[in-house]
Amino acid sequence: MTNTQITLIQIDNYGPWTVTPEPRREVDLQTLQSRLYADLSQLFGNREGYVFFTRFDNMIAVTNGLDADDHALIQESVSNRYPVTISLGVETDANPTRALGTATEHLQEAGSAQDAARTEVLRGDPLAEADRTDEDVQIAHFDVNDATGKYTDQLNEYDSFIQIEQGYASLMKHMREEHDGLSFFVGGDNIIAVCPAMDGDAYQSAIDHVREDVGVELKVGVGRARTAQAAGMDAKHALETCRHEETTVEFR
Amino acid sequence: MTNTQITLIQIDNYGPWTVTPEPRREVDLQTLQSRLYADLSQLFGNREGYVFFTRFDNMIAVTNGLDADDHALIQESVSNRYPVTISLGVETDANPTRALGTATEHLQEAGSAQDAARTEVLRGDPLAEADRTDEDVQIAHFDVNDATGKYTDQLNEYDSFIQIEQGYASLMKHMREEHDGLSFFVGGDNIIAVCPAMDGDAYQSAIDHVREDVGVELKVGVGRARTAQAAGMDAKHALETCRHEETTVEFR
Amino acid sequence: MTNTQITLIQIDNYGPWTVTPEPRREVDLQTLQSRLYADLSQLFGNREGYVFFTRFDNMIAVTNGLDADDHALIQESVSNRYPVTISLGVETDANPTRALGTATEHLQEAGSAQDAARTEVLRGDPLAEADRTDEDVQIAHFDVNDATGKYTDQLNEYDSFIQIEQGYASLMKHMREEHDGLSFFVGGDNIIAVCPAMDGDAYQSAIDHVREDVGVELKVGVGRARTAQAAGMDAKHALETCRHEETTVEFR
Amino acid sequence: MTNTQITLIQIDNYGPWTVTPEPRREVDLQTLQSRLYADLSQLFGNREGYVFFTRFDNMIAVTNGLDADDHALIQESVSNRYPVTISLGVETDANPTRALGTATEHLQEAGSAQDAARTEVLRGDPLAEADRTDEDVQIAHFDVNDATGKYTDQLNEYDSFIQIEQGYASLMKHMREEHDGLSFFVGGDNIIAVCPAMDGDAYQSAIDHVREDVGVELKVGVGRARTAQAAGMDAKHALETCRHEETTVEFR
Repeated sequence: MTNTQITLIQIDNYGPWTVTPEPRREVDLQTLQSRLYADLSQLFGNREGYVFFTRFDNMIAVTNGLDADDHALIQESVSNRYPVTISLGVETDANPTRALGTATEHLQEAGSAQDAARTEVLRGDPLAEADRTDEDVQIAHFDVNDATGKYTDQLNEYDSFIQIEQGYASLMKHMREEHDGLSFFVGGDNIIAVCPAMDGDAYQSAIDHVREDVGVELKVGVGRARTAQAAGMDAKHALETCRHEETTVEFR
Repeated sequence: MTNTQITLIQIDNYGPWTVTPEPRREVDLQTLQSRLYADLSQLFGNREGYVFFTRFDNMIAVTNGLDADDHALIQESVSNRYPVTISLGVETDANPTRALGTATEHLQEAGSAQDAARTEVLRGDPLAEADRTDEDVQIAHFDVNDATGKYTDQLNEYDSFIQIEQGYASLMKHMREEHDGLSFFVGGDNIIAVCPAMDGDAYQSAIDHVREDVGVELKVGVGRARTAQAAGMDAKHALETCRHEETTVEFR
Repeated sequence: MTNTQITLIQIDNYGPWTVTPEPRREVDLQTLQSRLYADLSQLFGNREGYVFFTRFDNMIAVTNGLDADDHALIQESVSNRYPVTISLGVETDANPTRALGTATEHLQEAGSAQDAARTEVLRGDPLAEADRTDEDVQIAHFDVNDATGKYTDQLNEYDSFIQIEQGYASLMKHMREEHDGLSFFVGGDNIIAVCPAMDGDAYQSAIDHVREDVGVELKVGVGRARTAQAAGMDAKHALETCRHEETTVEFR
Repeated sequence: MTNTQITLIQIDNYGPWTVTPEPRREVDLQTLQSRLYADLSQLFGNREGYVFFTRFDNMIAVTNGLDADDHALIQESVSNRYPVTISLGVETDANPTRALGTATEHLQEAGSAQDAARTEVLRGDPLAEADRTDEDVQIAHFDVNDATGKYTDQLNEYDSFIQIEQGYASLMKHMREEHDGLSFFVGGDNIIAVCPAMDGDAYQSAIDHVREDVGVELKVGVGRARTAQAAGMDAKHALETCRHEETTVEFR
């Protein structure tokens, strides 16, 4: 069984801020959002976690190994460097979707995402060190077979992007509905999924589903470890094995 | 008629770089990509352009007002600060998709995106100053009606994200196929589209399509100007009018 | 005659902010300060200006070619991305020190640097386009002869640093007192000075002074142009000439 | 007794890189240097260390608690994100200057700072966990009495800066020669010193020296702890005590 600790990161009252007193320049908002994401990648990543940008105003992190103090320090570091603050909801579950559901409820119970008085909430119980195991996190790293040859070097860039997006939309829905896994586009033709304990057949059936649904051919490397970073690096190496041996699903 | 100048930005030989000599840490790749995007937002934005992150290894910019020297300087500034370089293809057309198509061909003709010898290409003819008008760029800024009340404060964050993504996937495909417009998710519940000369009925029909297709309710503000930044800011103000007057399509 | 436009950049009420409600973590302050400087380097630099970090909470920029709107946009961009705001005082004079003096007075007249109510001041008259010439800005780029061979590869790093600092302290004082030039350490063994119209003898005598005063041997390349960036790049090329021809003072 | 672990950070072959194939734009170099410093502040800071920018191409860090793997990871993270790489020399000693001296020798023995073939060196033995104590690091945080009232709000900014620099130059030399402490200007009117075990009288005599030497009046808070961050935060609190009680030297 996996035991994934999920943290929901929510920028406090962000929507209203972006249009007060009048709409802020889009280039500055894009810069703010992408740098905040970069900084959170480093802040969580330096503690072996993974962050996904999702909608940028709400981001989702896998945080096994980070305790309440680590979360508080990250919250403080953001408020020291940005014009906005963040709230954090934390929860652990064998089922990543259920973990995120409860993490989300922690914040919803504290107030609306657009409540100016609800700032820097930190709720939920990080996993105790004693309860952690070397198999808590399962990460799957998908990419598209020969995306450069078939899309990037052939189609106009927007049509390449539509192909990738279609593959992503199909996979994310299937993984969510059939396996309670959370899948995130991470750039290029790469998708990283945070999964419960799934076996090779389950991944093969997800890949079959996407090919049948939208005609996009994926392969996947899977890793499992104590932290997101270790599991994710194993998944990358497994994906390299797929590439060299022309296989579709590899575990490491 | 619009006359949109589009620049395709492609990181040179990025895929191979990310796994050579072995896979690089994901947190560093995420940091690199999102900071490069933030810097390009500023580099183009300081010259009145807009950049969209798209797939991060390929980004699409609206660059009316930027000449070849501006493009070369941006290319140089990236190579001075990053471990990777970028190639740029530029083209102008009344039809944004056609502009991007030709911009893409400029790079494809120079070699593959994964050709280590094809670096820092700069091809295409920016629009001459004498040919520019105050109506060259049409930008539409969509958002989801009451996304916070209906999704963020109600659903778990991943299911909110799925709703937003579904709305985006439906809109991007419709705009591309029916109008040759290019639509980009920019965070939260916001989508910015680079459009040919579309009228209010066309936008209303796009909104109707998304509601019927996936049940997501959008509204849109539209601006038109000499540069992406001016058109985009007008679009934001028009969207504020939608919000205050509870309308669905507003021009400014 | 030169005609240097100087902008004083002051973080509003920064000292109190760093210790309220209690002292903020130093690593975050260092990150904030150095990133703000990097962003200002780009914001002014994309408009052909130069910024020097000076004390970080007060920075000095050479801004020929930037008008009031450019300054206002930079001010807005900072407030959109940082937890702090900046005030700007602008002034032009043949004498750089006098320009900075008046620019400083603009801010002092508006209130104390630690007055919480004095924020985002923008005062002073940028140089009218019609009054600009191709000789407005004179930039001198100094470095230490064979700093790597004599210091970096021989002494412990702190003692190398002390040598460089001594050279800088001596030069900055001499240039200020004898020539009303403003000299800034910019990293490594490099000092960039914003100068009035000085000739080769004047630079040679500054170099002689530093050698006699503290035993540090400098050379200098000098450029003159319409903007800081063009003058600064000419100065760098002139310094390369010194390096190749083993001369001490070169103009370009 | 203290036991300070010092890391010398040196950008590999940086001088030649800045002028190859011809001089790079100064704004990009400034951006690169200050962002690299900001990133190192976070990378070391997330592990309880402190970094000082010194000359930017050479930086000095206090790294008690960081082992060889931490150093290697920071080195890798820089090479993943920057066009330059860094070498690291590490050493521990009761005497900070001696620690830095040996750390410097580690790099000098591996080759010149301008040897293109000497890259990503990592040498020296981090302090074993078993040998660490709660008194290993002593940090002193100095600032100038009423710098805003006496300088910033009165003098032109450059003359304020000269005053602060004079105070710094005097203190850095005295601390180095009399106490083997390493002092770093960190912005505003702040100087942070990494010290051996010094008592209150020693700090008072340093402050007296600077007042007599250059007429600048300092005060200081001192902290002592297992890591730079904890000692530095104690020093800040002690300095706040000086401020409230109008004292000159406080320990915490």
